[in-house]
Amino acid sequence: MAVRVGVLGATGAVGQRFIQLLDDHPTFELAAVTASESSVGRSYRDAAKWRVDTPIPDDVAEMEVVATEPDAVPDDLDLVFSSLPSSVAADVEPDFAEAGYVLSSNSSNLRMAEDVPLTIPEVNAEHLELIEVQRDERGWDGALVKNPNCSTITMTPTLAALDEFGLERVHVSTLQAVSGAGYSGVTSMEIIDNAIPHIGGEEEKMETESRKLLGEFDGSGVELHGADVSASCNRIPTIDGHLENVFAELADDPSVEDVAAAMEAYPGLDLPSAPEQLIHVFDDPLRPQPRLDRMTGEGMAVCAGGIQETAGGVKYNCLAHNTIRGAAGAAVLNGELLVEDGWV
Amino acid sequence: MAVRVGVLGATGAVGQRFIQLLDDHPTFELAAVTASESSVGRSYRDAAKWRVDTPIPDDVAEMEVVATEPDAVPDDLDLVFSSLPSSVAADVEPDFAEAGYVLSSNSSNLRMAEDVPLTIPEVNAEHLELIEVQRDERGWDGALVKNPNCSTITMTPTLAALDEFGLERVHVSTLQAVSGAGYSGVTSMEIIDNAIPHIGGEEEKMETESRKLLGEFDGSGVELHGADVSASCNRIPTIDGHLENVFAELADDPSVEDVAAAMEAYPGLDLPSAPEQLIHVFDDPLRPQPRLDRMTGEGMAVCAGGIQETAGGVKYNCLAHNTIRGAAGAAVLNGELLVEDGWV
Amino acid sequence: MAVRVGVLGATGAVGQRFIQLLDDHPTFELAAVTASESSVGRSYRDAAKWRVDTPIPDDVAEMEVVATEPDAVPDDLDLVFSSLPSSVAADVEPDFAEAGYVLSSNSSNLRMAEDVPLTIPEVNAEHLELIEVQRDERGWDGALVKNPNCSTITMTPTLAALDEFGLERVHVSTLQAVSGAGYSGVTSMEIIDNAIPHIGGEEEKMETESRKLLGEFDGSGVELHGADVSASCNRIPTIDGHLENVFAELADDPSVEDVAAAMEAYPGLDLPSAPEQLIHVFDDPLRPQPRLDRMTGEGMAVCAGGIQETAGGVKYNCLAHNTIRGAAGAAVLNGELLVEDGWV
Amino acid sequence: MAVRVGVLGATGAVGQRFIQLLDDHPTFELAAVTASESSVGRSYRDAAKWRVDTPIPDDVAEMEVVATEPDAVPDDLDLVFSSLPSSVAADVEPDFAEAGYVLSSNSSNLRMAEDVPLTIPEVNAEHLELIEVQRDERGWDGALVKNPNCSTITMTPTLAALDEFGLERVHVSTLQAVSGAGYSGVTSMEIIDNAIPHIGGEEEKMETESRKLLGEFDGSGVELHGADVSASCNRIPTIDGHLENVFAELADDPSVEDVAAAMEAYPGLDLPSAPEQLIHVFDDPLRPQPRLDRMTGEGMAVCAGGIQETAGGVKYNCLAHNTIRGAAGAAVLNGELLVEDGWV
Repeated sequence: MAVRVGVLGATGAVGQRFIQLLDDHPTFELAAVTASESSVGRSYRDAAKWRVDTPIPDDVAEMEVVATEPDAVPDDLDLVFSSLPSSVAADVEPDFAEAGYVLSSNSSNLRMAEDVPLTIPEVNAEHLELIEVQRDERGWDGALVKNPNCSTITMTPTLAALDEFGLERVHVSTLQAVSGAGYSGVTSMEIIDNAIPHIGGEEEKMETESRKLLGEFDGSGVELHGADVSASCNRIPTIDGHLENVFAELADDPSVEDVAAAMEAYPGLDLPSAPEQLIHVFDDPLRPQPRLDRMTGEGMAVCAGGIQETAGGVKYNCLAHNTIRGAAGAAVLNGELLVEDGWV
Repeated sequence: MAVRVGVLGATGAVGQRFIQLLDDHPTFELAAVTASESSVGRSYRDAAKWRVDTPIPDDVAEMEVVATEPDAVPDDLDLVFSSLPSSVAADVEPDFAEAGYVLSSNSSNLRMAEDVPLTIPEVNAEHLELIEVQRDERGWDGALVKNPNCSTITMTPTLAALDEFGLERVHVSTLQAVSGAGYSGVTSMEIIDNAIPHIGGEEEKMETESRKLLGEFDGSGVELHGADVSASCNRIPTIDGHLENVFAELADDPSVEDVAAAMEAYPGLDLPSAPEQLIHVFDDPLRPQPRLDRMTGEGMAVCAGGIQETAGGVKYNCLAHNTIRGAAGAAVLNGELLVEDGWV
Repeated sequence: MAVRVGVLGATGAVGQRFIQLLDDHPTFELAAVTASESSVGRSYRDAAKWRVDTPIPDDVAEMEVVATEPDAVPDDLDLVFSSLPSSVAADVEPDFAEAGYVLSSNSSNLRMAEDVPLTIPEVNAEHLELIEVQRDERGWDGALVKNPNCSTITMTPTLAALDEFGLERVHVSTLQAVSGAGYSGVTSMEIIDNAIPHIGGEEEKMETESRKLLGEFDGSGVELHGADVSASCNRIPTIDGHLENVFAELADDPSVEDVAAAMEAYPGLDLPSAPEQLIHVFDDPLRPQPRLDRMTGEGMAVCAGGIQETAGGVKYNCLAHNTIRGAAGAAVLNGELLVEDGWV
Repeated sequence: MAVRVGVLGATGAVGQRFIQLLDDHPTFELAAVTASESSVGRSYRDAAKWRVDTPIPDDVAEMEVVATEPDAVPDDLDLVFSSLPSSVAADVEPDFAEAGYVLSSNSSNLRMAEDVPLTIPEVNAEHLELIEVQRDERGWDGALVKNPNCSTITMTPTLAALDEFGLERVHVSTLQAVSGAGYSGVTSMEIIDNAIPHIGGEEEKMETESRKLLGEFDGSGVELHGADVSASCNRIPTIDGHLENVFAELADDPSVEDVAAAMEAYPGLDLPSAPEQLIHVFDDPLRPQPRLDRMTGEGMAVCAGGIQETAGGVKYNCLAHNTIRGAAGAAVLNGELLVEDGWV
């Protein structure tokens, strides 16, 4: 049976990825697209300046864009995806949840709120139970579930796989693609023949969201994982795909083979958008590379490589597609988990 | 009085930088250029496919390229610069030293040999004394002095400035420009819209050379610095300028201001190619950036920024021009030090 | 019924595209892969350093690479694709044709030979009849058919569509992707933050091949089309997709609408790799763009846009994927035409 | 004696180039910098986000930004440079001219007005006489002089050199750098691994401005040159330097040598910012290239290469630095001409 879904903020860069991923989805049926005031009443084709490298789906092209308000979307939406700017989302998402909608949101607001599940389905599906706490505290009929920031998603599955070896401290450097900043977020003058050693707020997101994702849900809340995480975030001249260098200090002393085996054995899920193999480990130290490997598992897998022992632990590299696994695909997968677990 | 110099391997990418930097040098007078057999006997203009963004110096253009052998260069050369491929250098440099020439070499062979000075003049000028040990052991009349690898040079002055705070462990990730691999080292298909998470041998160089540079010379040898250094090296689509993210664990607990002050106060030298200010510290966390900042101090300064406290120490970014401060300029500066200290 | 095919030169950049395109082809079944001596006897996985952005097909990965000689491939190959370097192809392709194999070749040798069909199936399928002439003259049992150069293929379908308006003179400037030069053809130092205003031999190919493609086959040979064609070819920092600016002088005086209509109405073919719509015309003058539009029609369509009247005719832009429609896909399509027309 | 100058719109991308070029100018002394309201009253350092690759001049950094109005700048400015957005310039520049200021403007408004001199000093210095007409018609005490668009400037000196051979028709394709669109004009998502085949208004500018520059001044006005000019303009992923492919139809039938000689002999001027050699002709068809050659003549020369005979004339490539010779440097040079000719 089809699950009727809407997309809030459907015309932006991540919004367009939602439309692309929802096209031909086996269970989700797109029933509403919203955007800001200037787009309301126009066809999606007119309102969105389509810039994804596959054609705009014909049926979506003709949909009328509606306002980003609970009253403007159909009552019978089962699930609402959100890729609103976080300042807008902070205002609007609670209204939708209060009006009874279940939201799977990629926006950064409230990710660290104590009663908001922040989930990567393969890593901490059980955190969805926080929805009960959320409903109690906020009196909502609906629910608000978040996926983490793109740079956090890239490394967290690998850290989860390492946790059995006693994860104590993480240093991570990122080489992030320009699409992570949205269509107009990085100008060409800023990035051609260049790199930018800072992305506002990104380091804090990696340092806190990862510890919530790896944390324990005890029935009433999530205790953050005890590891220290320290991140340096860089923008480089790459379109899609975040590459990250991780240095992980581990209490135990696993070999490179132990680490590779733990990553490869880390279990995936049987959900429509989940890749069969969650973490692909490369032997070739030159891989993974953004352009060659970002579409592994249709953009939903995490790639790792270059695993080496180093003082106190291991170092390795990881990669994921930042606007698929790291944004729209992350929210779609959370939506699938919400359906699977009966919240929708 | 002019110091007559030669350049071994003068037609390659680093060789061309030598020619550019030696043009109008206040004391060095270029008297010989060597290259591989196929270039011998041709004019430098013909042999070198000049690809630096300033014009080829007229007088050098007409010089005849000679063989890379002690017999082929003038007897009266005071100083010889080398940017040979390391496999060639391993064969040829000892011949020159044995024949009485003093060499300042950028090639990677013998950098870690116990009797070979590896120097950044501002950091460890006193290591030049190893030349005495070298002459004793090898029976050379000449001498062989090395500068470190470009990625090592970029971070080492900042680590030297931090050493007063008790440097214990370093994690460093690099974002390296393609020029570091030579003119044909990285193909365009490999790097456009991409990044490569590995550079063969580079991590080991950073991990060992930095400890030698920061080590103590005790009259007979250099004791490596005790800090652990762990590096991950990446190639990105940038022409010139290596950017590095450093995480430094420090025994003391300096503030961001302490660290910035130590870097800015780190003393420079009064040599023709030395920048007045060795380390420039930026307040703006978006800086330094390769394209905007690599030419600071005419490409001979190191830039730092984004200093923040983190668990166990500090994190920050640093940048230097990899083919000037990191290669040809490094060797020229070592040559100036050799003159200043009376070895030439 | 399956057509058994082989690929000569299967490990190079275009060779890898052949493998990708032949994977799951409805009628072609890959039965042999050849490469140069150093690869013979190795598995394809080992011999090819796979760099296409989809995974290497499992069954091909385990195939043994054989020598590029008629004796080394199975006797029962129905069709042989070639993407050999043209100097190698010049030696080897005639041997295969003499040994009875039918070749669809992307290599540039013999493209302008009077008895060699140079075809784009939608443009000049009837030129295949030259095979009879070829067999008479050369005494071959097999046959050798060529597709044109990638930059020629991009513009020629649009010129064919304009021919009804009296095509008299063409000026064309190209903005070509680096993949056209092969994996190592353009170094990163050459092209980042740069463009190169010349590609050896490319202008001549565009100027002559286009006139052969648009020429008349009179039963015994092809008379070149009478239009003057003048080309300037440039390399730019783009991975895939050649963009071209065409200025076409026309005897008649068609309107922009006439030209757009002629392009859109230009007939496609019903072959497995042929796109339903051959030429896609964009109204938006900012399109087509390489990154957004090169995969139109799975990389086999030609895109056009920016049509404007100008003195003596029209100007417009066109785009095609240079390693699909412009190389491997072109040869596969010629192979499909050879089957359809009974030559295989 | 110093000429006191001001810069209108001093904080933008071209404005910053003005500041860079005026630093250490032999005769111009910067006495005023203006910007939009939000910057007024701030130091130039604060107001401009300095992004040129040389340091901000110390004395300018501390200057106070004033409003872009005649009353806000010192009365005694001898010369005013303008790099305002053209819509702003259209309002403000006439006010300054009316108030008695002499303006050398890079803004596109009024370039084709009949009484406004549009000049490249080496090409049509005599058009400055139009100032008399302008003053008569407009009743101004000051004057308004324009330089052409960056893409026009790049090719026009070469066309001027060809005019002796009977210039009849020009087809030109451009490969333009992103800096031509201003700091935020082209996003990174638009241009990495891509090219854009249209720049709004650019083709018309090239087609009309070139004919005015090459036109005859008859004492009362300029008669446009009779040649047809047809342009296609493209944006590519290059920071600075416009490369152009020109196809020129010529009445006479000059050889390649004739054309090269005419370009090299085309006279330069003895002005501080004028290059000694205006047009540099390369024999190597791979040159000129943006990254290697844009700084020829300190960014003020034009480079040409790849000259070949073609049906009806010649084809060749040309290159200039779009924000130096093509914008700020063009206006500075016009300012120097205004001084030289006694208008200031």
